Amino acid sequence: MNTDLDSTIQQMAQQLQAWRRDFHQYAESGWFEFRTATLVTEELHQLGYQLQLGKEVVKADARMGLPTEEKLAEQEKRAIEQGALTQWLPHFSGGFTGIVATLDTGRPGPTLAFRVDMDALDLNEEHSCQHRPHNEGFASCNSHMMHACGHDGHTAIGLGLARILKQYEAKLSGRIKVIFQPAEEGTRGAKSMMEAGVVDDVDFFVAIHIGTGVPKGEVVCGSKNFLATTKFDVTYQGVAAHSGAKPEDGKNALIAAAHATLGLYGIPRHSEGSSRINVGVLQAGIGRNVIPDTALLKVETRGETNEINKFVYEKAMHIIEGAAKMQDVAFDIKLMGAAQSSHPSNQWVDFIYDLTKKQLPELTSIVKNRYQAAGSEDATYFMERVKERGGQATYMIFGTDLSAGHHNERFDFDENVMITAVKTLSTIALHLPEFGAKNG
Amino acid sequence: MNTDLDSTIQQMAQQLQAWRRDFHQYAESGWFEFRTATLVTEELHQLGYQLQLGKEVVKADARMGLPTEEKLAEQEKRAIEQGALTQWLPHFSGGFTGIVATLDTGRPGPTLAFRVDMDALDLNEEHSCQHRPHNEGFASCNSHMMHACGHDGHTAIGLGLARILKQYEAKLSGRIKVIFQPAEEGTRGAKSMMEAGVVDDVDFFVAIHIGTGVPKGEVVCGSKNFLATTKFDVTYQGVAAHSGAKPEDGKNALIAAAHATLGLYGIPRHSEGSSRINVGVLQAGIGRNVIPDTALLKVETRGETNEINKFVYEKAMHIIEGAAKMQDVAFDIKLMGAAQSSHPSNQWVDFIYDLTKKQLPELTSIVKNRYQAAGSEDATYFMERVKERGGQATYMIFGTDLSAGHHNERFDFDENVMITAVKTLSTIALHLPEFGAKNG
Amino acid sequence: MNTDLDSTIQQMAQQLQAWRRDFHQYAESGWFEFRTATLVTEELHQLGYQLQLGKEVVKADARMGLPTEEKLAEQEKRAIEQGALTQWLPHFSGGFTGIVATLDTGRPGPTLAFRVDMDALDLNEEHSCQHRPHNEGFASCNSHMMHACGHDGHTAIGLGLARILKQYEAKLSGRIKVIFQPAEEGTRGAKSMMEAGVVDDVDFFVAIHIGTGVPKGEVVCGSKNFLATTKFDVTYQGVAAHSGAKPEDGKNALIAAAHATLGLYGIPRHSEGSSRINVGVLQAGIGRNVIPDTALLKVETRGETNEINKFVYEKAMHIIEGAAKMQDVAFDIKLMGAAQSSHPSNQWVDFIYDLTKKQLPELTSIVKNRYQAAGSEDATYFMERVKERGGQATYMIFGTDLSAGHHNERFDFDENVMITAVKTLSTIALHLPEFGAKNG
Amino acid sequence: MNTDLDSTIQQMAQQLQAWRRDFHQYAESGWFEFRTATLVTEELHQLGYQLQLGKEVVKADARMGLPTEEKLAEQEKRAIEQGALTQWLPHFSGGFTGIVATLDTGRPGPTLAFRVDMDALDLNEEHSCQHRPHNEGFASCNSHMMHACGHDGHTAIGLGLARILKQYEAKLSGRIKVIFQPAEEGTRGAKSMMEAGVVDDVDFFVAIHIGTGVPKGEVVCGSKNFLATTKFDVTYQGVAAHSGAKPEDGKNALIAAAHATLGLYGIPRHSEGSSRINVGVLQAGIGRNVIPDTALLKVETRGETNEINKFVYEKAMHIIEGAAKMQDVAFDIKLMGAAQSSHPSNQWVDFIYDLTKKQLPELTSIVKNRYQAAGSEDATYFMERVKERGGQATYMIFGTDLSAGHHNERFDFDENVMITAVKTLSTIALHLPEFGAKNG
Repeated sequence: MNTDLDSTIQQMAQQLQAWRRDFHQYAESGWFEFRTATLVTEELHQLGYQLQLGKEVVKADARMGLPTEEKLAEQEKRAIEQGALTQWLPHFSGGFTGIVATLDTGRPGPTLAFRVDMDALDLNEEHSCQHRPHNEGFASCNSHMMHACGHDGHTAIGLGLARILKQYEAKLSGRIKVIFQPAEEGTRGAKSMMEAGVVDDVDFFVAIHIGTGVPKGEVVCGSKNFLATTKFDVTYQGVAAHSGAKPEDGKNALIAAAHATLGLYGIPRHSEGSSRINVGVLQAGIGRNVIPDTALLKVETRGETNEINKFVYEKAMHIIEGAAKMQDVAFDIKLMGAAQSSHPSNQWVDFIYDLTKKQLPELTSIVKNRYQAAGSEDATYFMERVKERGGQATYMIFGTDLSAGHHNERFDFDENVMITAVKTLSTIALHLPEFGAKNG
Repeated sequence: MNTDLDSTIQQMAQQLQAWRRDFHQYAESGWFEFRTATLVTEELHQLGYQLQLGKEVVKADARMGLPTEEKLAEQEKRAIEQGALTQWLPHFSGGFTGIVATLDTGRPGPTLAFRVDMDALDLNEEHSCQHRPHNEGFASCNSHMMHACGHDGHTAIGLGLARILKQYEAKLSGRIKVIFQPAEEGTRGAKSMMEAGVVDDVDFFVAIHIGTGVPKGEVVCGSKNFLATTKFDVTYQGVAAHSGAKPEDGKNALIAAAHATLGLYGIPRHSEGSSRINVGVLQAGIGRNVIPDTALLKVETRGETNEINKFVYEKAMHIIEGAAKMQDVAFDIKLMGAAQSSHPSNQWVDFIYDLTKKQLPELTSIVKNRYQAAGSEDATYFMERVKERGGQATYMIFGTDLSAGHHNERFDFDENVMITAVKTLSTIALHLPEFGAKNG
Repeated sequence: MNTDLDSTIQQMAQQLQAWRRDFHQYAESGWFEFRTATLVTEELHQLGYQLQLGKEVVKADARMGLPTEEKLAEQEKRAIEQGALTQWLPHFSGGFTGIVATLDTGRPGPTLAFRVDMDALDLNEEHSCQHRPHNEGFASCNSHMMHACGHDGHTAIGLGLARILKQYEAKLSGRIKVIFQPAEEGTRGAKSMMEAGVVDDVDFFVAIHIGTGVPKGEVVCGSKNFLATTKFDVTYQGVAAHSGAKPEDGKNALIAAAHATLGLYGIPRHSEGSSRINVGVLQAGIGRNVIPDTALLKVETRGETNEINKFVYEKAMHIIEGAAKMQDVAFDIKLMGAAQSSHPSNQWVDFIYDLTKKQLPELTSIVKNRYQAAGSEDATYFMERVKERGGQATYMIFGTDLSAGHHNERFDFDENVMITAVKTLSTIALHLPEFGAKNG
Repeated sequence: MNTDLDSTIQQMAQQLQAWRRDFHQYAESGWFEFRTATLVTEELHQLGYQLQLGKEVVKADARMGLPTEEKLAEQEKRAIEQGALTQWLPHFSGGFTGIVATLDTGRPGPTLAFRVDMDALDLNEEHSCQHRPHNEGFASCNSHMMHACGHDGHTAIGLGLARILKQYEAKLSGRIKVIFQPAEEGTRGAKSMMEAGVVDDVDFFVAIHIGTGVPKGEVVCGSKNFLATTKFDVTYQGVAAHSGAKPEDGKNALIAAAHATLGLYGIPRHSEGSSRINVGVLQAGIGRNVIPDTALLKVETRGETNEINKFVYEKAMHIIEGAAKMQDVAFDIKLMGAAQSSHPSNQWVDFIYDLTKKQLPELTSIVKNRYQAAGSEDATYFMERVKERGGQATYMIFGTDLSAGHHNERFDFDENVMITAVKTLSTIALHLPEFGAKNG
């Protein structure tokens, strides 16, 4: 263990906690990370990183599940009131809340990238004495926005890592990028950064998450089994009519939605692997005595492979269109999020496994590969892109104690995990040449 | 009362019974009336009527619900074995089993038409001691074909009427047509005769039925409220696949049919009058472990007016097509029958009412107009056509005792009703000039 | 025409308009008529009427579609801020906003009752230059509450009528009641007043409405054809689960709701008369990636007779329960409103017809009976009760020009109709002895 | 290789073919194997086996998917006409067509059992020049019954094996059972023999199949991944009514079936493994204009584990019952077949693998374990039972060329596979002591 690195990071503990709690208190949901992004930018700027901001790293029309302009403007105003730095804000205005910070050592070597995410969930945080953020005064002050998945910690880890890398710059070679992504919840943001080309030059890639059921003291080098997913909203538009006086004049959007719902859940299983379909939300109609003329469905498909997800998605398209036809109503489908199926690169995982075994003896357990419960992650867009272009990629998990499950209004985590993460990721950066050497 | 006419008809009682029982015993379902049609033709020929047969009076492509050529050929063979007259058979071969017999008096006057139907139902007749046709040896000897609606009686009435009219020709004027229609059950045959023009020259028209809940001794001059109807078969054609090994390869016709079924029953009410929808039969799939690749639905729509029936039918078309689209299966719709909404002509009904009141004192009750339970009749095609061209039309009912409801396997009726019918219809023909005089 | 009465009422025009516009501006939806009820009460009190208020005339557990206590309290507070009279408010507190005002002449004679309603609709009023209430400053200042059906006019008519009757008390005999009913929209209020017995002593009853498509200058003496209706909310409660990780743990309330929806629309037609079914609103689920654990359906059934409505309702109960069973979810049904089928009493309508013909020559048209488009009205509860106890009842309509259809956000009416209504109803009260004489 | 055994079996080739072709020609579907069973019995009797027949080895009420008594009687009559041996027939009468033949060597040793099945499929065999069975005169002469899965070969292999074992009795020890099972198609028969206790004393168990996509010359020692399955028929019984005249009198079984269908296909995926659901057949209704009063659904559930299959089955029960409730119709569920999930015993598979490698060098390929496409097999009942009681079990596949896929009307196979199978199974029996020695 590099004892110097160790003590440097230990001294950063207070700072990590301060960052995390600040982000937690001013939680901002996807595409609304205006305050967070300006503070992150200022810190990276102070450290001396090369910065690419907003539209440089977020492709406008590849963003998914973007809120309305009204809501974006309203949240930008809210962010200013909560201390967003107005010198940086124009870069992020309109929902372009992505940042890429680059450290170019000037020395030859591969490009290594780390990705963290910054967004909160659309959830009201618990305000009760059983909940530490409330007791210690850093619970979210933003209604219906809460860091209940740990991305506040991820952002703090990204900043801590950036600070360490800058301090140890002399020992590094090649180029290192730290990617701060917006809107991971709902798998809406990564695609837009990937399409902007931010990992096109990356040789080695690491995305991270804390918690997810991994015990405190354990690190997972390669998390497997992310399901490919497509998330979309369906709207049906019919014609209203008085249900007593003129039922024949209506075109019933709710009946279309009911057929679509039953049809979607009835999409067949695929013999080659797992699939999923869900209609999570249905809202239709305006009054008891009016033939319902509108319906909104929030749908998602998943598949163990991209092909299986595509199979489910294509079946869904037929069903949705057919149900519209049945009731002679118009329909519209709006893509709201997507992620891919992706597996970590074996050699890269092996290297990280061996390295952490050797360099981080304080870890109680190091796991090479772990099968996730069937969830989705849009870091898979970065991973697949890196691998397509010949690089190697993985997804790491840092175990920690949780006060409640992810996405629960009482979620909180043991903040020591941030130190572990910064240490592990710094160690990977410092030892990367050994991998190059081995695999050269 | 014309006592001469009265006794003439009374003497015909045995003959009417003999005809009816012969048709009953050799019951022939719609488009299969080969034996019946040849015997009717021979009788009319002997009487000296001008005859138009088969394709002259049945428009080929306006026939609905036609059986396959194989079945037609098979039934024609069966008919020959049962005594069909082969000199007349070529006219009717291939499902053209309609006849129009015309008596032209040579004297000026309007054209009057009577319509009777000849087909049996697809039903096995009861063979038990409680059932008179069985006991007296005239129950149907044809499997799955039974005169359970009284058309055997209608055909006999038509022949009896033709004989009387011929006898009283000297007292008649103008032209009289007696129309023997095939395939009334399922409302499949009238349209093809109407489209062949058989009532285009008709000034006054009477269609008849016996029974239908009207008490013995009562005559209804104008039966109202026939529902317009469209009857059609829907087939869905998908792709079979092993439900265990490759469920994803199937295109499920049964799911399409289930959506169609629920969608069809959900067609909205119409505020301007009664409507009906029924999916009477659904047959789908070939084996428990095969994704069902075929489905057949037998559907009918009805409406208090032709417009309401059209409204329901057009809604149904959307639903059926949309359900196919949902499962990406092919579909086909085959028209199997249709009838219109039609109301008797008021003046014509008034004339018949007054006439029967005066001339047929033996009737226990004469009803001017009666609202039918919501059924359908394809004589409405003739009625609407006659009225469109300036003529007048009605639908009469002759009450009688029934041993069981229409379409029941124990159906039978009191044969005296045939005498009443022949007498009433003959009286109308003989007194028609009085109406012309009154309404000229 | 009573010229004295005529000029008295003409002088009241300004007052009627003032009342109506005040109620319009402070529109209050059903069970929230706190301000309206206190102002009405004060006026009637000043006139010297015997008053029965709140729980005396509204049976607590017969109220339907009652808002939550929180909302009632919130609206009561709002009413106070808008000038509700706190001396009367305790009577109406908690949603008991009904009033019965009685004028007992002390002279023998029958009891005559008039019923008006006071509630607004849950609708945002149009604020534009095309809309007179906006231009002239009396558009609703209450969000999501608007008098878009004319009940503001009905309340003003009730007050104007009360004032006239008091003025002409010496010419009246028997007892006269004016009933001010809450919550007619959604047919929620009448049953609770009927069950409190407010029409149990009534011999002659008149409920009124303005507009409804009747032309200006026309009065309808007996409006027919109200459909019986039952309005209810269905909630399904299942179990949420992550749709990716543990779909098998969910119990899907949305699937239950989709089956219920299709099942409800598929309830068969009834051969004996019109029926209706509508699922006007469906709201289900909490998030795209969560198996939906809740669903709410707002449903209504209707029938041309109470029996047909009951038939549809009972079919609906089976469907709703079965759909819950299919998905193993809990369900709850909450009655939200109801009305009956009712027809005006013939003799009573004849009397009013003859009387208005004679006494109100300025009316351009007087219609004895008119068939309504298929709507519902809970005044039918009063009508049926009066008729059950041997009295006679009718429902009158006063025609007027409308700026837009009822329930439209641009609804407004020609206020002169209020004069016509007050005059007609006063005339009925003044001439009632003539009817007694005729029918005694 | 035991050259003596080899040449003995080669000489049996004609006999194997003769047996197979005879069974093929007189194909008998499940529970109808009357002729087959009597011929098999006679052969085993001639060889001197101890025999247990019919009710001794088939538990009456554990039989699934049993035809009606009428059909059983009809088929028994047909079997007699086709040469069934009447001395043995009484044992099998009524659908008890199972046989267990035991060879007790009198020497100590474990009990080894082989299981073959005897039933044909409900399929019409192709009669064309492209189809060898037709050309060479052994195509099925029984309508709607065809050996399209190879059970004719299995039965011949069972007889050939029995003959060899008897010839080599002196070299064997312990006890050997050959089980001839009825009704494997639809997984209907094994449970009844298992429950009769026929494998309760078995230490080592081998079930076999030919073909299934395994290439000619290849043998699979352990076929994995059979899905647990439950097969059942659902009937709904409602009330018929005339769809035009009295739609309100019906209770619609077809609507119930449509809801059940959509509900069943919508049963959620299980996160712990594969599942399947299929509604293979739906037959409902009697006529276009009749509210359908009956519906039959043929359903099957499957699961990668018994627990997952149970999960799907239990969800199905709720759906079926709830759909009945929705339409107020009666329902009935009849178990028609079932199989379990089962995996081969590892040590037993290893032994067979090593043995065949050594003793059968002529095989082109020997595969230890192979994952099957997702099908089901009721030999799993025997396998699970043997393993529960401490024994070891496997399922072997003998590759061969097929003229068309299993269950296809042109199915045929290269008959040499029967020699391979007899040789392999004989070899296992002769070398079993080596396994006992190794694992003792």
